[in-house]
Amino acid sequence: MTGAFSGWLEAVAGDAEVAARLSEARALDDMLRVEAAYARALGRTGQVPEALAEETAEAIAEFVPDRARLAQEAARDGMPVPPLVRQLKAALPPRLHKALHAGLTSQDVMDTGLVLALKDLLVLFEARLGGLGEQLDALEARFGAAPLMARTRMQAALPVAMRDRIALWSRPLVAQRARLDALRPRLLLLQLGGPVGTRGSFGEGADAIARTMAAELGLDAPGTAWHTDRSALAELGGWLSMVTGSLGKMGHDLALMAQQGVGTARLAGGGASSAMAHKVNPVGAEILMSLARFNAVQLSGLHLALEHEQERSGAAWTLEWLILPPMLIATGAALGRAAALLEAVEALGEGASGG
Amino acid sequence: MTGAFSGWLEAVAGDAEVAARLSEARALDDMLRVEAAYARALGRTGQVPEALAEETAEAIAEFVPDRARLAQEAARDGMPVPPLVRQLKAALPPRLHKALHAGLTSQDVMDTGLVLALKDLLVLFEARLGGLGEQLDALEARFGAAPLMARTRMQAALPVAMRDRIALWSRPLVAQRARLDALRPRLLLLQLGGPVGTRGSFGEGADAIARTMAAELGLDAPGTAWHTDRSALAELGGWLSMVTGSLGKMGHDLALMAQQGVGTARLAGGGASSAMAHKVNPVGAEILMSLARFNAVQLSGLHLALEHEQERSGAAWTLEWLILPPMLIATGAALGRAAALLEAVEALGEGASGG
Amino acid sequence: MTGAFSGWLEAVAGDAEVAARLSEARALDDMLRVEAAYARALGRTGQVPEALAEETAEAIAEFVPDRARLAQEAARDGMPVPPLVRQLKAALPPRLHKALHAGLTSQDVMDTGLVLALKDLLVLFEARLGGLGEQLDALEARFGAAPLMARTRMQAALPVAMRDRIALWSRPLVAQRARLDALRPRLLLLQLGGPVGTRGSFGEGADAIARTMAAELGLDAPGTAWHTDRSALAELGGWLSMVTGSLGKMGHDLALMAQQGVGTARLAGGGASSAMAHKVNPVGAEILMSLARFNAVQLSGLHLALEHEQERSGAAWTLEWLILPPMLIATGAALGRAAALLEAVEALGEGASGG
Amino acid sequence: MTGAFSGWLEAVAGDAEVAARLSEARALDDMLRVEAAYARALGRTGQVPEALAEETAEAIAEFVPDRARLAQEAARDGMPVPPLVRQLKAALPPRLHKALHAGLTSQDVMDTGLVLALKDLLVLFEARLGGLGEQLDALEARFGAAPLMARTRMQAALPVAMRDRIALWSRPLVAQRARLDALRPRLLLLQLGGPVGTRGSFGEGADAIARTMAAELGLDAPGTAWHTDRSALAELGGWLSMVTGSLGKMGHDLALMAQQGVGTARLAGGGASSAMAHKVNPVGAEILMSLARFNAVQLSGLHLALEHEQERSGAAWTLEWLILPPMLIATGAALGRAAALLEAVEALGEGASGG
Repeated sequence: MTGAFSGWLEAVAGDAEVAARLSEARALDDMLRVEAAYARALGRTGQVPEALAEETAEAIAEFVPDRARLAQEAARDGMPVPPLVRQLKAALPPRLHKALHAGLTSQDVMDTGLVLALKDLLVLFEARLGGLGEQLDALEARFGAAPLMARTRMQAALPVAMRDRIALWSRPLVAQRARLDALRPRLLLLQLGGPVGTRGSFGEGADAIARTMAAELGLDAPGTAWHTDRSALAELGGWLSMVTGSLGKMGHDLALMAQQGVGTARLAGGGASSAMAHKVNPVGAEILMSLARFNAVQLSGLHLALEHEQERSGAAWTLEWLILPPMLIATGAALGRAAALLEAVEALGEGASGG
Repeated sequence: MTGAFSGWLEAVAGDAEVAARLSEARALDDMLRVEAAYARALGRTGQVPEALAEETAEAIAEFVPDRARLAQEAARDGMPVPPLVRQLKAALPPRLHKALHAGLTSQDVMDTGLVLALKDLLVLFEARLGGLGEQLDALEARFGAAPLMARTRMQAALPVAMRDRIALWSRPLVAQRARLDALRPRLLLLQLGGPVGTRGSFGEGADAIARTMAAELGLDAPGTAWHTDRSALAELGGWLSMVTGSLGKMGHDLALMAQQGVGTARLAGGGASSAMAHKVNPVGAEILMSLARFNAVQLSGLHLALEHEQERSGAAWTLEWLILPPMLIATGAALGRAAALLEAVEALGEGASGG
Repeated sequence: MTGAFSGWLEAVAGDAEVAARLSEARALDDMLRVEAAYARALGRTGQVPEALAEETAEAIAEFVPDRARLAQEAARDGMPVPPLVRQLKAALPPRLHKALHAGLTSQDVMDTGLVLALKDLLVLFEARLGGLGEQLDALEARFGAAPLMARTRMQAALPVAMRDRIALWSRPLVAQRARLDALRPRLLLLQLGGPVGTRGSFGEGADAIARTMAAELGLDAPGTAWHTDRSALAELGGWLSMVTGSLGKMGHDLALMAQQGVGTARLAGGGASSAMAHKVNPVGAEILMSLARFNAVQLSGLHLALEHEQERSGAAWTLEWLILPPMLIATGAALGRAAALLEAVEALGEGASGG
Repeated sequence: MTGAFSGWLEAVAGDAEVAARLSEARALDDMLRVEAAYARALGRTGQVPEALAEETAEAIAEFVPDRARLAQEAARDGMPVPPLVRQLKAALPPRLHKALHAGLTSQDVMDTGLVLALKDLLVLFEARLGGLGEQLDALEARFGAAPLMARTRMQAALPVAMRDRIALWSRPLVAQRARLDALRPRLLLLQLGGPVGTRGSFGEGADAIARTMAAELGLDAPGTAWHTDRSALAELGGWLSMVTGSLGKMGHDLALMAQQGVGTARLAGGGASSAMAHKVNPVGAEILMSLARFNAVQLSGLHLALEHEQERSGAAWTLEWLILPPMLIATGAALGRAAALLEAVEALGEGASGG
């Protein structure tokens, strides 16, 4: 749950806003939100006195972890929750421990925390997709009627209008928004299973706890834990890669259109060369291709992580942590780069780069 | 559109039924069905006389291509449709040529032909998923109450019942069936675009032709071509890999359960060793792991093929042809292997392999 | 050990010669050669009477397996050697069984058989690489002095000569040939380990048996088995992908050069379109890009198969069988396609497609 | 050229030492070293007065870039060198500009800078591999004679000694060290090509400049630029993945050996569970599996980046930047984790976890 790219590379092919949402600080906040929601749910469902639960939740919400120590201990435990809970226990008076993590397992906290971040990021991605749709509509309005020689298999085919190619860029973005609507209810789910995922540790109140906790967090509550069924995350990965792949196609087209001799796109403000002052490189278009390939490659890793042996696989879970955040950042970066690229379009269609 | 594995390897990790549906012979039949449906649609929508259209469609349906010559010419053209159409033109009298492929492009024929095969294969996969669900229910009825030590991160955790682990195998299979329902309407679509995908070659009758042709083929008719938007195929690939990944998890579990010293699964009829007569290898369980990893790896290739530059990318399209059929076969193989593996289960739960 | 593509797809993106060398029939021959060499080595090192060993080896060499039955049983055993050995035992008189497979394990036979095929294929690939080098030299002699506008980041940069770009195509092919020399001694090794890879089943004669057997087969004899160390196969996969990647770069360049408006390559005999009679598609160039991406994707699978748990992993080994043969075929196909593409070059350099 | 993992995730599956060597600050230092070495080479080969060259080199070496502004401008230029050179030009008096970057291109600076980092990292990795070899030798001395039941295809096979399995862990590590010796001379090469890679900008002094510059930097000087031939980086990626794959096999073995019921490894100081106080999770062993799969997946990306169209591909180059640093960090992490895991071994062999 952390950023992948930093410094100039983040500026080139990363996304500071997405990375911030996935930062360690925010991820720990998400985990604390989950712990607090659990404490409250214990109170509201009568497992512990409600006032005590509320007091615990507030103490959790205000807690500021010692991140250096947490990282050090996470190296041994393989994840941040055990040391985080130890820090919480040391900080909160023993009388509050009844409502603190008791019955939960690390995976409940980590997975639900991740889902909270995903919920926010999907809002961001959807908004950016919508913005791109508007930009494409505006380009169609300006340049849609311009003639364009269609090219199939890299060869001139038949004359079309520029709107025909713009439609090729719009279609998959609309489709990805529709897929997002279908994905959300499968993905934005509370994880609540307890040590071995059976909810046995919550007794008869399990369902009520789950519903209350989910409502508190703005998530849906499935009837069981999904701890070893990572398919919603694999599906999310596929969606991210479909988004970047769709934008990679658009970037590839624009890089081809901006070639001297083809000249069907004029782009403002491309990249400078350190050696050739006359060049204006279609950097944004190229980076869309890089990010598309990056996500296509990463997707394999998320699918490998489906193989969650027995009741919890540390090997598969850790792989997921390494793969998913960079994919999210790459997706944000591609959406941002695509907006800037469309903004830079000065002319489209045959002769666009002439006169 | 052809099988990936043959001989003993097909028997070990392939699926003859799926391979047969994807055979060259069947794929050419599918293409001819598309050409015939197009001829009929031209007649029914009044583009050509209906009797002539019907006569053309019948002649197409009866045509048997010279596959050796077709392959030879496909090597140059990069695909089978141009030589297939040349063979058809040589075989059908010129007066029928008006209703023969005129206005279509190779991609309309290839893509729609592929969709016809996918439609059949998804029926098969859904039935097999249903069968596995029944097998798992039966196993739960027999062994669900047996005690099992849950294992998290490869270590004994807490006692559960065998039904808890069986539930981990069932859950994702149910989820994949639900995803299939969502996928079908996005995938089982006629491709009709003409040379550059704009439907310009069909004139004002384009929509009527598309609707008529789709109805004839049992597909849905989208309002435009999807020639460069391959996201439904990428999504299909993700679904296939989610299926094999879910079965890989089950296979991994059973391989671990069948270990001496763990002994929570007794499997009949495993594989023989050429050197150690006492061994019974959990071959089916291992192969589920192999197929899961195979599909996870391939999926990257399908997503790379999203980058369909301009109006048609030979590079991306060819990559799709190389990747998708083996994924379909691997999925069929995993479903078949999983059924055999569950059939071979003789006992589950602590002490299953003892006395 | 079997071909991946058939029919028109094999013609487009496969390689019949490589596929034939990897056919089931040839692979079983290779396994029988290994069994025969082992029998002879037992005789020559005094483990069994030499005449009996020779008689056994000859009987093995003449044996024709029942492939249908073998495939059927391989489905259960997970590999072909156990049923092959059963067939051999049934066919050879019991007095020869002493020199028949006794002490060997399936993996010795399969892995060494694979190495025999690889040895032949590397000879073929090296010859084809050499042929491409000659073709490039000839193109340089014809067109090397032609002016060319260098293009960096898809944009016109500075004028160079055509020989500068041809050098970019030659350099990696020369490098891959050098890498092949380094790879061979690590790869072309006898596998001999016995049931658990320790050579314990061969007693004190193990080294002598290994040396004799390796000499008989034209391989090197390592001091121990390499049964769980698959890194030479992973390295081979990397080499195959470097070859196809290098050719993919050349194909990509030629596809860009053949664009209308760029026109720095004129290619004869491209692919026909079923809809646009005027088009000549650079099909061969595109397919080089497809095959490069195909192998790049597959390579992950070979590296995943490095994870060979304990003394033998059926899961990893099966994955290797599914991945490596298609990579070999794709490499052969790329080498063949590249030769045809260079053969089709009619002119290179600025203005090549003009006048 | 930047770290991939931060915070607790870096502690779990990253490597602070490797990440530091790849930090933006160090990478910019490397680029300045390249610029300074070039200035000196211009002086020593008589292109500019030697004193002026030396003065320029010293000014470059002392320059501290404004990293925030650099990142901002890199977003547009697609890489850090153009803004870095602009900053240098603004900082150095015009009379020194003759020896400042004149004739170089961004790629010369970036690629050579990367090679400087790789040179250091390979020293580190080799030392760690050597350390693991010593640890394995020590374990063999302590536990080599202990009995162990060999397991093939997840099933008990035949009794061996613990040293036989330790040998399976050592063998590939020794092999990777040998491969490293072969890789270095292909990888640790100066990049010097000028704007379009032909060295045309350096005139007749090109070779002398290259030799002088390479000597200054401790690298070899190839006769030509390797700007579009990325195969040495793909080969490096394969080596990294072979290292992590070899360690993943060892981790997988130890995770299986530490299972209750198998009990052939006793590991100290495993990870704690937040819910089950009795558990000691073999976290380090699992993470070796995760890192092996991570690198196997990434490797595809490096091979896709071989497709460097024309004289420079921004798309392929950017992809390389996104993929290679995380692979290097994952490799460092696996080497570090493996050392800690072997350090934690308390007993090996049958009964290791008993009494």
